[in-house]
Amino acid sequence: MLEKVDLSKKMKKDEAKAKLEKMGAELSHLQRECKASGIPVMIAFEGIGASGKGVQINKLIQALDPRGFDVYTVNRETEEEKMRPFLWRFWSKTPETGRIAIFDRSWYRRVLGDRFDGLTPKKQIPFAFADIHSFERQLTDDGTVIIKLFLYISKKEQEKRFKKLDENKETAWRVSKEDWNRHEDYEQYLTLCDEMLEQTDFEFAPWTIVEAMDKEYAAVKIMNVVIHRLWEALVEKKQREELEERIAKVEQVEKKEGKRGRKAKGAAEAEAEKEKDAVKWKEEEYKIGVLSGVDLSKSLSEKEYKARLDKLQKKVEILHSELYRQRIPVILAFEGWDAAGKGGAIRRLTSKLDPRGYAVCPTSAANDIERKHHYLWRFWNKMPKAGHIAIFDRTWYGRVMVERIEGFCSTAEWKRAYQEINEMEEHLVNSGAIILKFWLQIDKDEQERRFKDRMETPEKQWKITDEDWRNRAKWDEYERAVDEMLVRTSTTYAPWTVVEANSKQYARVKVLETVVEAIEKRLKEEK
Amino acid sequence: MLEKVDLSKKMKKDEAKAKLEKMGAELSHLQRECKASGIPVMIAFEGIGASGKGVQINKLIQALDPRGFDVYTVNRETEEEKMRPFLWRFWSKTPETGRIAIFDRSWYRRVLGDRFDGLTPKKQIPFAFADIHSFERQLTDDGTVIIKLFLYISKKEQEKRFKKLDENKETAWRVSKEDWNRHEDYEQYLTLCDEMLEQTDFEFAPWTIVEAMDKEYAAVKIMNVVIHRLWEALVEKKQREELEERIAKVEQVEKKEGKRGRKAKGAAEAEAEKEKDAVKWKEEEYKIGVLSGVDLSKSLSEKEYKARLDKLQKKVEILHSELYRQRIPVILAFEGWDAAGKGGAIRRLTSKLDPRGYAVCPTSAANDIERKHHYLWRFWNKMPKAGHIAIFDRTWYGRVMVERIEGFCSTAEWKRAYQEINEMEEHLVNSGAIILKFWLQIDKDEQERRFKDRMETPEKQWKITDEDWRNRAKWDEYERAVDEMLVRTSTTYAPWTVVEANSKQYARVKVLETVVEAIEKRLKEEK
Repeated sequence: MLEKVDLSKKMKKDEAKAKLEKMGAELSHLQRECKASGIPVMIAFEGIGASGKGVQINKLIQALDPRGFDVYTVNRETEEEKMRPFLWRFWSKTPETGRIAIFDRSWYRRVLGDRFDGLTPKKQIPFAFADIHSFERQLTDDGTVIIKLFLYISKKEQEKRFKKLDENKETAWRVSKEDWNRHEDYEQYLTLCDEMLEQTDFEFAPWTIVEAMDKEYAAVKIMNVVIHRLWEALVEKKQREELEERIAKVEQVEKKEGKRGRKAKGAAEAEAEKEKDAVKWKEEEYKIGVLSGVDLSKSLSEKEYKARLDKLQKKVEILHSELYRQRIPVILAFEGWDAAGKGGAIRRLTSKLDPRGYAVCPTSAANDIERKHHYLWRFWNKMPKAGHIAIFDRTWYGRVMVERIEGFCSTAEWKRAYQEINEMEEHLVNSGAIILKFWLQIDKDEQERRFKDRMETPEKQWKITDEDWRNRAKWDEYERAVDEMLVRTSTTYAPWTVVEANSKQYARVKVLETVVEAIEKRLKEEK
Repeated sequence: MLEKVDLSKKMKKDEAKAKLEKMGAELSHLQRECKASGIPVMIAFEGIGASGKGVQINKLIQALDPRGFDVYTVNRETEEEKMRPFLWRFWSKTPETGRIAIFDRSWYRRVLGDRFDGLTPKKQIPFAFADIHSFERQLTDDGTVIIKLFLYISKKEQEKRFKKLDENKETAWRVSKEDWNRHEDYEQYLTLCDEMLEQTDFEFAPWTIVEAMDKEYAAVKIMNVVIHRLWEALVEKKQREELEERIAKVEQVEKKEGKRGRKAKGAAEAEAEKEKDAVKWKEEEYKIGVLSGVDLSKSLSEKEYKARLDKLQKKVEILHSELYRQRIPVILAFEGWDAAGKGGAIRRLTSKLDPRGYAVCPTSAANDIERKHHYLWRFWNKMPKAGHIAIFDRTWYGRVMVERIEGFCSTAEWKRAYQEINEMEEHLVNSGAIILKFWLQIDKDEQERRFKDRMETPEKQWKITDEDWRNRAKWDEYERAVDEMLVRTSTTYAPWTVVEANSKQYARVKVLETVVEAIEKRLKEEK
């Protein structure tokens, strides 16, 4: 999940200050509301060393009524704690209804720092993840809101911060030998973090990755997430209560009139309206912004394009037979804006492949039969046999893009889809598959040019419909959904590749190159 | 989960026939209703070899409209299937809305037969369980009803059936060498089954263990479970629809009157009423009957009692210091009918123990602070340090007994408690604890005698309250809840011991003996 995070995010001090002030008042209000509604809240701060957890906790609690929260610093287990089951120290710190518990490091120690330092035996890791799952599920089932923040900085930034602390007598003690050790093995530590994030990004207790290079930006993002989650919890609780109230009222009416109500659609619509309200906070500030950082100026000369394309196509042809011999299945997923060039890229990829060894699976709206099954069913059916390649032109990610935005599925459905998709892909990779996912990125202007070109060119007119223009109107909404999708589903086992596709030539070569590299890497591992 | 199952269950042919006929009509009706409501259903038959899966599937489908179901026999993977990810063959067989898919063996192969035969690599087992969890969770989240049946027979019965098949030319082919191998290692295979049942008894897709020694009894139980689950799913779906209808109606009323409704309790009561309806089927037939099989005539002479008690108490004293030296925590949970003798048994157990090394934790109704936390919180807080013994007089099992029956928690809450409790106990055992759970069983007459004795003996009068008599009136309801609890939470890592307690002497000795044995066993393992 970390791979796609853009660490260049910044915010000006003045802007941050103004926002924090406004949000602080809101948070303070929400704290009171949560107390009144009896909602317990847990906020866990995790992250890279020197990413500023202490500073951020301090900023956050400024807005809170000190009588209503506790801060726990989770160090290595004391002798006393070592004599208890691991979760005991966290169960005993779960807040009562209406209180907030803030953790500086948390029950994730065992799969992060302690694991890295070799304190958690390897064979205990699966149990540790299972324990975390049941701990958080049991509490959220019971009404607790769990907010998990992961503060992320680059290796370079970490070095800078460590050095600065080291130089000053007053702060040098804060950088330990272990900190420097972890810094040395930053990449390895990051891999642990990534695995942890993948394993524990539950629908009921999702992670928020906080870009923490800039303290102002981080503070605003954290405050925003906390506000949003508390607000959501309150809205949900109120909706439930209101529902009960309404039912009671109907009961009265029914008693009076002595007959039963009749069907209507208004109810569903009213609910949907409320759900829209509930995400207002999120939409305003909570931008992840993977796509906004993509450099779309990349291109290739016609000559270079042809030379490289030719070479890559020949390579892929040879690798294809090697895959077949070694019985390795390959799954290639293509997503991207309308007119981003998915079809063209797929054609360049397959032009020299043996057609008996691959299949292109186009995905359009689900048909009657497909709609009668789980949305993943039709994709499961098309998964390739060992040694074969399946290329999906649009994919199961429709669930968290078009279905989410057009309201073809409920909020609960698309929210749980991230985990469902990750589980499916993990299963496929565990059974031997290579999975690569491509997002073809163009900007809005480029799309307009291509749309117009399609309309004006008779043989391309079939490619453009009114729906394309309609989707285009929702560009910003889609961008937010794609950003979230790229972060939540870019896993170590099935990474996303964002392809700069304003230049079709550049995009096609990058796709082919990525495929070739991934296959070569895997074949090397097999040896 | 298998340990507590009573395999002596039987039913007369006539009785079974009459019941099956009546239930068949009901099932046929429910099939049509599920079709109309668009509910997909999956029924998995698993079990010991020769437990009669084929026969039972055949009986079940007699009642079904053949246009609405499919039966899949799940053998070892074909060459074709081996080339796909494991779950592919099951995803492709998931039924569309309104259809029923019946599996003769299922996606559990990989953790049962294939595992036993060494076809599933050991390190894949945790992944296999995780895959099963996500497969079933994704489908039930999407509205599929998953019914899982485990057919259970004894080793002796299996041998009898195998021999009978072997003797007949026509049927001899049905008993393979692998079948006899598994028979040889029946106990080992059963351990695998037990682990599988524990790991996958999910709240959203629970197992039903079918006592399959008697085919008539098994057929009735299976039919009953299927009917009950379909009925439950339909009721839930209808409740949801009705709710929407009601809300729509309120909307209309509100529009007319131009104002908002007001608070009321009627709603909750109406829901509760419906829930009662929903469990009608279950209550009628679905008896597990652990307690009814207990032999309460066991007793001890005064002389033998004293001699054994004395010996055991001395032993436990020595073991206690050994536990302390080796830093092993012990958790002893006592449950049982009112006046079953929990207090007396605990006193005999602790009378020679060093008080610095154990604590007795009595459990009464939750106090104000406790009610503000998750129901497990107060028990987590009391879990013993390494080397100490915690003895709970009444326990976290209150959730699935008194809280369930008195309506102190919702149906969803006590239903998910089995898994929550198993997870907690597994965590404790994984961190080194010994857990033993005792159910002190007396019969209704014995309880009455003891109640009366308490009322008539001045120094015992404090022990008896009106509430005790009120609870007694719900004996049957409690018995069903206890039966279900014993089956669902008797795990390999934290077993229940049912103590025959009509004779207090016998009960006390059995408790002490069980504790001594368990500690001795563990100390031996530590060496």
